[in-house]
Amino acid sequence: MKDKVSTAVIQRLPRYYRYLSDLLEENVERISSSDLAARMHVTASQIRQDLNTFGGFGQQGYGYHVPHLHAEIGKLLGIDQQKYLIIIGAGNLGQALANYQNFTKRGFQVKALFDIDPEVIGRTIQGAQVFPLEYLEAYLEKNAIDIATLTLPRDRAIEVAKRLCRCGIKAIWNFAHTDLQVDEDVLVENVHLSESLMQLSYRMIAARRKQKKTEETGDTGTGERSD
Amino acid sequence: MKDKVSTAVIQRLPRYYRYLSDLLEENVERISSSDLAARMHVTASQIRQDLNTFGGFGQQGYGYHVPHLHAEIGKLLGIDQQKYLIIIGAGNLGQALANYQNFTKRGFQVKALFDIDPEVIGRTIQGAQVFPLEYLEAYLEKNAIDIATLTLPRDRAIEVAKRLCRCGIKAIWNFAHTDLQVDEDVLVENVHLSESLMQLSYRMIAARRKQKKTEETGDTGTGERSD
Repeated sequence: MKDKVSTAVIQRLPRYYRYLSDLLEENVERISSSDLAARMHVTASQIRQDLNTFGGFGQQGYGYHVPHLHAEIGKLLGIDQQKYLIIIGAGNLGQALANYQNFTKRGFQVKALFDIDPEVIGRTIQGAQVFPLEYLEAYLEKNAIDIATLTLPRDRAIEVAKRLCRCGIKAIWNFAHTDLQVDEDVLVENVHLSESLMQLSYRMIAARRKQKKTEETGDTGTGERSD
Repeated sequence: MKDKVSTAVIQRLPRYYRYLSDLLEENVERISSSDLAARMHVTASQIRQDLNTFGGFGQQGYGYHVPHLHAEIGKLLGIDQQKYLIIIGAGNLGQALANYQNFTKRGFQVKALFDIDPEVIGRTIQGAQVFPLEYLEAYLEKNAIDIATLTLPRDRAIEVAKRLCRCGIKAIWNFAHTDLQVDEDVLVENVHLSESLMQLSYRMIAARRKQKKTEETGDTGTGERSD
């Protein structure tokens, strides 16, 4: 296995895992890289290259053994190990994440939520209680938590991230619309929703521009014929 | 401007926009690529290279004029044009998105939500009403909508995506944990939350593996000294 794995490969791993989970559910035991490629709308050589990063898993002339490959990628993604999360910010987004069954299936368990709003403090969401934010340090002292999720406004997120680092949290899943400045050994995974929406918007405008260009050069692209 | 812009550059554009918005708020009128690079924790040459894709914007010896660059990137991202959204699935996630003030600031307006749950149908979220899902086609016939957001379970999302395509929707922001099969001219932007969480998990395990390796080769990395 390579020491440095590219971000692009890491980003694609969960997608492989998802397709392999589907194959498992369909009781498919074995699949060639070209069949898997056709399903995933990628090239077979990309699949082989990606999986070779981790030492292969495939056999010449046999293809991939689905349960084995599923288990191996699961191990790489840590799905075989239970991980405990807290969510800071129990608004709509925090509650949506706490309710999300897909996480539980993949070994992520939400243990508690934190908020400053008396309206939500004391509620229980899928077995996880909402505590007052001031209880954060005391809670982390008594409970082993792997990942802290931030679903807070950006100013508050920056401050809370610092508190989390002081408590020894090493992984932050950040939904606040800011880049957190944390210690070097703290991992941050950002989900910037409005940036995703802006990317879509960019592509809409680029498509419109391209269409306009096509129209100007004579090809209307409307599919209309005069026959 | 280049005809083909790489996905990586498109992904970085909203981040440039965010930093430029911050600079505007701080009344900074002019910034060098190296100062911007230091703020964004990237290299100055990456910034110059990225922005050159769109024809530059900078002036030798002057740097970037913040209000101008902000406006130009805003145009590329379509922020100068109002875009209308609907959200299909008015659960926690759908409601969180409808409540998100950041979208409104960037020209995205949620016009309506759709659901099958009588509990939420009829509610109004930030001025947008929740309609029964069966009303979708009739609504789209009467209202010009640019983007449909899917916050639904995956099976239902596949079916609703087909209905949206039949109604002429050309852009889908998809939160369902599946790859939608849509017509070639329909843009899909995926936000797969559990895949983002799995990427974080991968990096946690990789970091642990690296630390273990360091410990085995003698350097404990704990910072402890015996002097």
